[in-house]
Amino acid sequence: MIGGGQGAFIGAVHRIAARIDDEYELVCGAFSSDAEKSKASGVALGLDPNRVYSSYQELIEKEKQLPENERVQVISIVTPNHVHFDPTKMALENGFHVVLDKPMTFSFAEAKELQKVVKQSGKRFCLTHTYTGYPMVKEARQLVKSGKLGNIRKVYVEYPQGWLSTFLEGSDNKQATWRTDPGKSGIAGAMGDIGTHAFNLAEYVSGLEVTKLCADINIVVEGRKLDDDGAVLLKFNNGASGVLVATQIAAGEENNIKIRVYGEHGGLEWQQADANTLQVKWLDKPAEIWRTGGGYTSSFASHNTRTPAGHPEGYLEAFANLYRNFALTVKADLDNQQAKPEWLDFPGIEDGVRGMAFIENVIASGKSDQKWTTFNI
Amino acid sequence: MIGGGQGAFIGAVHRIAARIDDEYELVCGAFSSDAEKSKASGVALGLDPNRVYSSYQELIEKEKQLPENERVQVISIVTPNHVHFDPTKMALENGFHVVLDKPMTFSFAEAKELQKVVKQSGKRFCLTHTYTGYPMVKEARQLVKSGKLGNIRKVYVEYPQGWLSTFLEGSDNKQATWRTDPGKSGIAGAMGDIGTHAFNLAEYVSGLEVTKLCADINIVVEGRKLDDDGAVLLKFNNGASGVLVATQIAAGEENNIKIRVYGEHGGLEWQQADANTLQVKWLDKPAEIWRTGGGYTSSFASHNTRTPAGHPEGYLEAFANLYRNFALTVKADLDNQQAKPEWLDFPGIEDGVRGMAFIENVIASGKSDQKWTTFNI
Amino acid sequence: MIGGGQGAFIGAVHRIAARIDDEYELVCGAFSSDAEKSKASGVALGLDPNRVYSSYQELIEKEKQLPENERVQVISIVTPNHVHFDPTKMALENGFHVVLDKPMTFSFAEAKELQKVVKQSGKRFCLTHTYTGYPMVKEARQLVKSGKLGNIRKVYVEYPQGWLSTFLEGSDNKQATWRTDPGKSGIAGAMGDIGTHAFNLAEYVSGLEVTKLCADINIVVEGRKLDDDGAVLLKFNNGASGVLVATQIAAGEENNIKIRVYGEHGGLEWQQADANTLQVKWLDKPAEIWRTGGGYTSSFASHNTRTPAGHPEGYLEAFANLYRNFALTVKADLDNQQAKPEWLDFPGIEDGVRGMAFIENVIASGKSDQKWTTFNI
Amino acid sequence: MIGGGQGAFIGAVHRIAARIDDEYELVCGAFSSDAEKSKASGVALGLDPNRVYSSYQELIEKEKQLPENERVQVISIVTPNHVHFDPTKMALENGFHVVLDKPMTFSFAEAKELQKVVKQSGKRFCLTHTYTGYPMVKEARQLVKSGKLGNIRKVYVEYPQGWLSTFLEGSDNKQATWRTDPGKSGIAGAMGDIGTHAFNLAEYVSGLEVTKLCADINIVVEGRKLDDDGAVLLKFNNGASGVLVATQIAAGEENNIKIRVYGEHGGLEWQQADANTLQVKWLDKPAEIWRTGGGYTSSFASHNTRTPAGHPEGYLEAFANLYRNFALTVKADLDNQQAKPEWLDFPGIEDGVRGMAFIENVIASGKSDQKWTTFNI
Repeated sequence: MIGGGQGAFIGAVHRIAARIDDEYELVCGAFSSDAEKSKASGVALGLDPNRVYSSYQELIEKEKQLPENERVQVISIVTPNHVHFDPTKMALENGFHVVLDKPMTFSFAEAKELQKVVKQSGKRFCLTHTYTGYPMVKEARQLVKSGKLGNIRKVYVEYPQGWLSTFLEGSDNKQATWRTDPGKSGIAGAMGDIGTHAFNLAEYVSGLEVTKLCADINIVVEGRKLDDDGAVLLKFNNGASGVLVATQIAAGEENNIKIRVYGEHGGLEWQQADANTLQVKWLDKPAEIWRTGGGYTSSFASHNTRTPAGHPEGYLEAFANLYRNFALTVKADLDNQQAKPEWLDFPGIEDGVRGMAFIENVIASGKSDQKWTTFNI
Repeated sequence: MIGGGQGAFIGAVHRIAARIDDEYELVCGAFSSDAEKSKASGVALGLDPNRVYSSYQELIEKEKQLPENERVQVISIVTPNHVHFDPTKMALENGFHVVLDKPMTFSFAEAKELQKVVKQSGKRFCLTHTYTGYPMVKEARQLVKSGKLGNIRKVYVEYPQGWLSTFLEGSDNKQATWRTDPGKSGIAGAMGDIGTHAFNLAEYVSGLEVTKLCADINIVVEGRKLDDDGAVLLKFNNGASGVLVATQIAAGEENNIKIRVYGEHGGLEWQQADANTLQVKWLDKPAEIWRTGGGYTSSFASHNTRTPAGHPEGYLEAFANLYRNFALTVKADLDNQQAKPEWLDFPGIEDGVRGMAFIENVIASGKSDQKWTTFNI
Repeated sequence: MIGGGQGAFIGAVHRIAARIDDEYELVCGAFSSDAEKSKASGVALGLDPNRVYSSYQELIEKEKQLPENERVQVISIVTPNHVHFDPTKMALENGFHVVLDKPMTFSFAEAKELQKVVKQSGKRFCLTHTYTGYPMVKEARQLVKSGKLGNIRKVYVEYPQGWLSTFLEGSDNKQATWRTDPGKSGIAGAMGDIGTHAFNLAEYVSGLEVTKLCADINIVVEGRKLDDDGAVLLKFNNGASGVLVATQIAAGEENNIKIRVYGEHGGLEWQQADANTLQVKWLDKPAEIWRTGGGYTSSFASHNTRTPAGHPEGYLEAFANLYRNFALTVKADLDNQQAKPEWLDFPGIEDGVRGMAFIENVIASGKSDQKWTTFNI
Repeated sequence: MIGGGQGAFIGAVHRIAARIDDEYELVCGAFSSDAEKSKASGVALGLDPNRVYSSYQELIEKEKQLPENERVQVISIVTPNHVHFDPTKMALENGFHVVLDKPMTFSFAEAKELQKVVKQSGKRFCLTHTYTGYPMVKEARQLVKSGKLGNIRKVYVEYPQGWLSTFLEGSDNKQATWRTDPGKSGIAGAMGDIGTHAFNLAEYVSGLEVTKLCADINIVVEGRKLDDDGAVLLKFNNGASGVLVATQIAAGEENNIKIRVYGEHGGLEWQQADANTLQVKWLDKPAEIWRTGGGYTSSFASHNTRTPAGHPEGYLEAFANLYRNFALTVKADLDNQQAKPEWLDFPGIEDGVRGMAFIENVIASGKSDQKWTTFNI
């Protein structure tokens, strides 16, 4: 693991996610750019001190020198955005598979570059758009794919948060500080942090691609340097339209990312606050409540379910599904076997490139007087 | 009553609404432009056949000739949009108070004209934006007004329907036919029928006024002549921004108009599907569930509540609140008394003009390549 | 109307319910046993003072002397329980149809006596168990009847209130005072007021009859003279079992009467807080959300629906359904026509007798050391 | 681990729960009474084959012979009920801490005996009543303890399932087979499997103890040998009363265990289907929605929370909280430190004894003609 030292939020989440299904063992880490902190974090995690490194470069170099059956196989990179590209590139080019936190890179240019690196490396790459790991999100995608809703006409996706309603970066809140710092987060704040999640969810569930967008991007809290709020009109490649909302100043909101998709014959609705339910609505008959663990769900949902219906699976399980599927895929490769479609169903480099393009295009649109901005990629 | 003959939907709703609180008696009507149908409808409603008229002109003229204590006092006009302006103008100019269904007129020009007529007539005028009649919508407005949420930063309003997901006007569905007919509905379909409701609700609850908008207006169902779908980015006069969604092609949706408003310290959420609940969310403490009939609500809510908490008040009661408050106001006038603020809290000519301006501006924006269209009024 | 003078709650509700569908006109009343108060109430309601009477006896006698086409046809009796039997009997015996508030009588003996009176009178009789007036409650009954759930195995019904959590009868709360007074309410408090509603709902929806019960009946608030809380184990005539809960000391609860019924193949759930939804659950497929106004509902639901799906119908509409169906039935009688099954679907004398038997048996069981008390009737 | 071989449900759950917080490492196991199966399961789990044993006796004996710093410290026992007592007793007497699945033993007599064994052994013991591991369940307990609800008057607890609606034990469903087999489950079916969970939750949250009960215990599905349904009236040691429902034949229900507790001033409601929400209701003010991760929750909730509010924590996390707190307690013992109250907040031997007493008493009450059965312990 690179990054994720003491005090970091997402690093701990990655470690739990990796542990849940017992497909990974944490063997080494460079947990901080501060060597002392990295060491302390590694020791606290019970690692062999010899494999706690002071930098990602050291980690990659030293691990590469270990015998193949001892060295780390998959490197998780959980640093802030501005330290995504370099370690990922180096890891891939040195033969390691990579799990990377989103948004993928600091800039769109890096994203395009990374796409080439992944392709050339032949290594597996996973980008942790967690929400696509929920069984009922997977079911939603399969339902759209099945054609039962008919052609898709409308996509509404939203990710409302309230935690940045005040000038939190003025205190010593580590999360708030780096996420609102253009030097660490890039050109986007809310749009990068949660807008990309909403964007990815919309494309994942609908199976469509955004082709044009029109954005209203705001800095609501005085003194903030990056957007903390935005709303985006969307056009998709099949002619459907949509709305994407991402805000961090909806005071009182938690993390209720939500999607609704409507086709000719019916619609679907999913939200994280009721993550194990997929509402399926029909034009002429009663709406249905599809549930995680229901005997009627697709293999994409059931493969990602651990407990019988009614025992809620949460955010960490969704996260773990990414790690598990990635592991199953890597193992299939090692065994020279074909990975099953259910295993390959984790976000990858294409999602990452599209996510960075979203950031690029949505910020450009926010600054434009023209209504529609073409989704350049 | 003008319009609302047999087979019409909203006329029956108006009559129930007027009856609920026993402040009105239906005494005359011109229920259809077809004299036979009007007569038949009037008889079915138990009216004196002498006061069932063949046209609105006849109604107004004949009623005016009746002694003051016999003639009708308030005329409800529930015709399709293209027959709003003339009868309303004539009724007001002949000394009758008017309750009019929304949207107010066929065009914005008519709306401006009607505004003058109302002013000159000195008569009372109510426009039936029903949703502002719900006790918890009134409570929402009072909560914003109280300042407890702080300055308002964000308004999300949506009105999703699914009933026009197919080419229903191709069958003999009366509702679908006139609502999708530019000759009867005016320049807007969904935006006029339900967009105006959403717009009115947003301004009513937030206490703000839209100053700019950016609209994506669509005709989704092939062959349809008016918009059946749209999404609008909004800017308000205090700097807040918002999103308005109105669609009639969200297959499987009913009529769940919903609003969320966020200020510096908290937010609120109301939706018709749970009409007696107002969710109030706070930055640093548990969200609260405010309920119709709760002892802690404002006089604006309690005045519009008939039953103890937990006995749901519905759409017809909300509608009845408009009629009741209008009657209380008219009676206060007759008694030369000051109407209470709670009584005056019904939508009027200003709401109507703004609603028609919304239609005008939103359709213009839909056609424009520029991002922002100034809200002209 | 007998009872329901100024300050009374349920009288006003009856009047609204009767008005909503325009099938009734209020023509006379004896609104209070105090002649002055009765007069004042009648005047406030706009009645002809000559038809505002000082006692129910006077009302019945005087109205009977009026020509048939002038006299009142249906008498609503909305007095406290101890003044139910006498006026009802007298009204029926003098040729008037009666709508009576629940519970039907002061004692079970009166109920049995009234049953004979109704039969001998040949007049129509309606007991206002309001909750069976909700469209989705009617749908629930039809669903059970259809056999789709299979044989019914389990019935859970509950009516939790919190309003009597304190010694409210110690203040001058009129409702609390008579409802906790054995001289006015009879042998039961909560079990009579809301337990009978729950009991009626259970039998109505399940189509079953209780044959045995085992009750835990409590007076929770110190100083109270009648039960304010109870829970009852039930056995039904088909071998099914159930639980009935009725309490007035569940602090914070409103009036969320709720029923769940389970058969071999699935179950259903309805609650007043979401009155327009019927949840239908299946053993092997997704649960369904049936809604008031859905095109797929039975004629028993659609007949009792006024607005398109998504415009909530509430408590007053449910109440109005009782009045409307009663009127349709009375009119069918007058026209020598067969009343439709949908019209006859209002609670009557049999429900009243069973309700009073429930009170009798449940209070007896509460005092018994034996587990099961046979449901004597 | 003892039990939990391939195909078992709860064993896998225990292993995930133990892994989540990285406080445990699985080092040995006797996964089946069939030596072959045990070996296969252990190998699949990646264990050293030398530490995969053919019986629990072998496991305990062999592990005891290992040096203290190598041998297993905590033994998880996840066998069917009839194989709980012997391995637990042997493990404790040989110096191992034990985590045991519920219900604790096959019979009440075993439970009493085990209570002595635990005491004499001086070892730590945890019984996996999972639901008490949810942060919001812990919050509920703390809220009652704080006295803010006043004296508790009413407790409603229910655990409805539908999975045994058919004669599933007639097929080769492993779960259904042993759970309905008196030789493996003991004298109770539903009451043992889920009734004990409901009972434990009621006592845990309310802080009260049941003193009397009155049970209706049923075998609904023909041919079944143990109860699959029951409802129980409860009396508590402070005079409060309650109702407990546990059923496995509520067709269409999943696992929505739910509790409501009411005191003089307010009430609370929690259910697994919305596990991160605690509804708190008040007599005179709006109900509140307390959420996992809310900044206002007690240390008992926050200590058991891993992710920011709105990222749902589920069943596995609740289970993991038991394992984590047990580990923290064991480690505190090893370090000769005082375990914090938050760490000691896991179910133990007393809960187990009371749970087995519940089974004993509830089944006795089910057979009794007397209304109340004293809760003997």
